[in-house]
Amino acid sequence: MKPSHIEHLGVAVKSLETAIPFYETILGVKCYAIEEVAEQKVKTAFFKIGQTKIELLEPTAPDSPVGKFIEKRGEGIHHIAFAVDGLQDRLNELDAIDIQLIDKTPRKGAEGLNIAFLHPKSTGGVLTELCENPNK
Amino acid sequence: MKPSHIEHLGVAVKSLETAIPFYETILGVKCYAIEEVAEQKVKTAFFKIGQTKIELLEPTAPDSPVGKFIEKRGEGIHHIAFAVDGLQDRLNELDAIDIQLIDKTPRKGAEGLNIAFLHPKSTGGVLTELCENPNK
Repeated sequence: MKPSHIEHLGVAVKSLETAIPFYETILGVKCYAIEEVAEQKVKTAFFKIGQTKIELLEPTAPDSPVGKFIEKRGEGIHHIAFAVDGLQDRLNELDAIDIQLIDKTPRKGAEGLNIAFLHPKSTGGVLTELCENPNK
Repeated sequence: MKPSHIEHLGVAVKSLETAIPFYETILGVKCYAIEEVAEQKVKTAFFKIGQTKIELLEPTAPDSPVGKFIEKRGEGIHHIAFAVDGLQDRLNELDAIDIQLIDKTPRKGAEGLNIAFLHPKSTGGVLTELCENPNK
């Protein structure tokens, strides 16, 4: 049940309009999707590099999780997401060894994935997400 | 000349002794190497997940780049490194479009890679490394 790969990296940015052309230059690939996740108050833009996606996150409100992150720490890498199978079992295992979970059961994230976050207090300051593709 | 994949993620930690067991639990793999990079005043510990390595970085001195990062921002993701071929050519290309470079020519990093950093001022707050495997 170990993660197979890094599914994506979330990067907090103030403006997709500024960030997308930069990432297209650095990565040499075009942004392939823009999606708004209303529940999280973010607009996301996706790039694929190897097995991993770069997910740019622009807050749509200052009081959103990403808006608060940028206010406190500035733009930068917001979270790391690992691809796993059996997400609920994996959460139960981590809960049993006292890893603090933000989500004890999976919820829906961008791109139709089932996702859950672990608390950075339990993960050495790194906001960590596990995600499972329900259509795999 | 676009990057092929994310070569590694550098994660600043206060203590490898604390962080290694945690990452072994989350990732389900053992740390495969510990290496001191004296020039950067860090001890590093490596894990492999899919195409990407997680490189934990423990500062060996408070005035080191990673020590200052932790003092300012706390533990967390420190940098993202993309695997490229033709590193010098790639740096020249980025320099020509006014991306600010920390290293205008490659230098030696951990694991014998040739590496160069781009300045976070030019990369939306994300300290970005390009690396090339000279033995590929």
